[in-house]
Amino acid sequence: MGNMRAIVMHNGSVRLQALPIPEPGPGQVLVRSRACGICGSDLHLTRHTGEVFDIYAELGMVANDARDNPSIMLGHEFCAEVVAYGADTLQTLPPGARVTSVPFLLSEQGQVGVGVTPAVYGAYSEYFLLQEALLLPVPDNVPDEAAAMVEPLAVGLHAVNRSRINADEVALVAGCGPIGLACIAALRLRGVKTIIASDPQPDKRAMARHFGASHLVDPLQEDEMLRCTELAGPHRVVIFECVGVARLVPDFLRRAPQKSCIVFTGIHTADITFNFAFATVKELDIQFSYYYQPEEFATTLQTLAEGKVDWQAMCTAKVGIDGVPAAFDELLKPNNHIKVIIEPWRSGALEAHTTPPDVA
Amino acid sequence: MGNMRAIVMHNGSVRLQALPIPEPGPGQVLVRSRACGICGSDLHLTRHTGEVFDIYAELGMVANDARDNPSIMLGHEFCAEVVAYGADTLQTLPPGARVTSVPFLLSEQGQVGVGVTPAVYGAYSEYFLLQEALLLPVPDNVPDEAAAMVEPLAVGLHAVNRSRINADEVALVAGCGPIGLACIAALRLRGVKTIIASDPQPDKRAMARHFGASHLVDPLQEDEMLRCTELAGPHRVVIFECVGVARLVPDFLRRAPQKSCIVFTGIHTADITFNFAFATVKELDIQFSYYYQPEEFATTLQTLAEGKVDWQAMCTAKVGIDGVPAAFDELLKPNNHIKVIIEPWRSGALEAHTTPPDVA
Repeated sequence: MGNMRAIVMHNGSVRLQALPIPEPGPGQVLVRSRACGICGSDLHLTRHTGEVFDIYAELGMVANDARDNPSIMLGHEFCAEVVAYGADTLQTLPPGARVTSVPFLLSEQGQVGVGVTPAVYGAYSEYFLLQEALLLPVPDNVPDEAAAMVEPLAVGLHAVNRSRINADEVALVAGCGPIGLACIAALRLRGVKTIIASDPQPDKRAMARHFGASHLVDPLQEDEMLRCTELAGPHRVVIFECVGVARLVPDFLRRAPQKSCIVFTGIHTADITFNFAFATVKELDIQFSYYYQPEEFATTLQTLAEGKVDWQAMCTAKVGIDGVPAAFDELLKPNNHIKVIIEPWRSGALEAHTTPPDVA
Repeated sequence: MGNMRAIVMHNGSVRLQALPIPEPGPGQVLVRSRACGICGSDLHLTRHTGEVFDIYAELGMVANDARDNPSIMLGHEFCAEVVAYGADTLQTLPPGARVTSVPFLLSEQGQVGVGVTPAVYGAYSEYFLLQEALLLPVPDNVPDEAAAMVEPLAVGLHAVNRSRINADEVALVAGCGPIGLACIAALRLRGVKTIIASDPQPDKRAMARHFGASHLVDPLQEDEMLRCTELAGPHRVVIFECVGVARLVPDFLRRAPQKSCIVFTGIHTADITFNFAFATVKELDIQFSYYYQPEEFATTLQTLAEGKVDWQAMCTAKVGIDGVPAAFDELLKPNNHIKVIIEPWRSGALEAHTTPPDVA
């Protein structure tokens, strides 16, 4: 079927390449990528490829030989359109139908992650493969870039569901990037009244307020844990760790309030050392949250269709496929972006999409 | 009131000393110790005093100057009898009444732990002080040594309650010392059907069976985690970590089954290093359990009065007060004891009390 433009991450750098358009296998669908979010884990992977793939290999998630300098075709937060079906497919959706999906593919390697697995096409490419059985049609009133945000929003919903937080308990969301905002949105939809958002960046705090945080804390100025304790009274504090910096974890656990629950939303691939005595005396609960259930993904798409989450505010920039390498350089430095959306079907440099709301 | 015999831990050694009988302050009661269990934490403290007290001081549980070579009057698992009341007491129980209590005292230092706090008398001594408001009378059909076992049994009950395990979920109790057996007893009373007990010592496994374990595993011969996964099917696995050896924790977490819950029942005071990626991908829940609620303590006493726990089997030896130093030497080496009970009112060396049941 000819060649396409694709983004390949290798040796920590992200490059535009020409690659053959893949052929859909049995049960698979060839799709054209309409929009794909740049995830913090994509950025993390470029800097810590070896560390991440050592863990993946140890967990049996990738073949052992994949750990040596893998080439990854990134992209797992996407909206796409149906192009062509492989064998053994029902073909319910016509070509051109807009779809999204949990980013998994049944391949010869078993179930693999789209956008993280060597030799599996990701949604930063013009074309990639999905599993027909996992496709979700995107409602007409959900634009491409909104559908691409289902994935990170579902990560937040899953973390919130894991915690079983109730309306009277107090939530602290530490770190107000996309996953932090996704947690805040999910907490608000769940009816949680007290949602404390903590982030050193004022624009991130303003965004947190916009998404439903009831209290804002600058952790460089104020102890966010003390603030929780004061606001919680007899109620449980549930902390959503959305900072994702491994070296901050031990201090974080050490300062967590008594009998609180800490939900880790990110994957820390560095070793972490801490003393369990503090966790014991405070009777902490530590929960690790990973991806989402398929129904949480579908619920999130429905939530967007119902206009219940202001995804526009999260989408701070768009970029064409040839602008991705420069965008990565920019995003790996301190910045104010929340979610940058790649439109792989066009060319163009990074361009601010919206002005975040309420930001002074 | 004259002198008494007391056991004092200093610089890692345990010595018999003559000390003045304490005077009860307001709200306090002077009691005579009738029986006191030797706890694993007492043994741990003799070997890691500095490490433990550094943590206590950092947590604000003891004064900062207490960390330098503290002298500790051990003993927090006890049955005692009322001797004399201090001021501001109701004196409902007559002198001679047998009592037990959660091991806390309201002192000038605030609420302090009996048997772990410098300058606070412990139940290894002939006499010590309790808080009148916390006293629980011991029913006539509960012997002294049984009442002394309420404390460790309540630790197990609390750990089991923390986990909210239901009857169809699968419990793994790793380590079948007193706390492991206490967990097994509590799990059985809660109606949990599948209780897997893991211990390298055959006599400990036999004891676990006696207390209600449905399956026994020698972890040196068989992967206890795989056994859980097989038996659990779709149900959650809840693991009670009752081994208490910090260096085993990282491997333990690494091998824990997907979506399992690990409850730490002991206080690990050494730093522990592990990689959160494994915990994340498996979506582990880690719960830290510490002491018990007062009502759990009272429930446990009631359970013993109703004859629902075979405390006799747990009590593997008794020792008089002058035999304690030699008993510590013996217990700090590999041994088959479950619970050794000190009878501080008499002299005598360590003597086996019962033969554990069903032990080949």
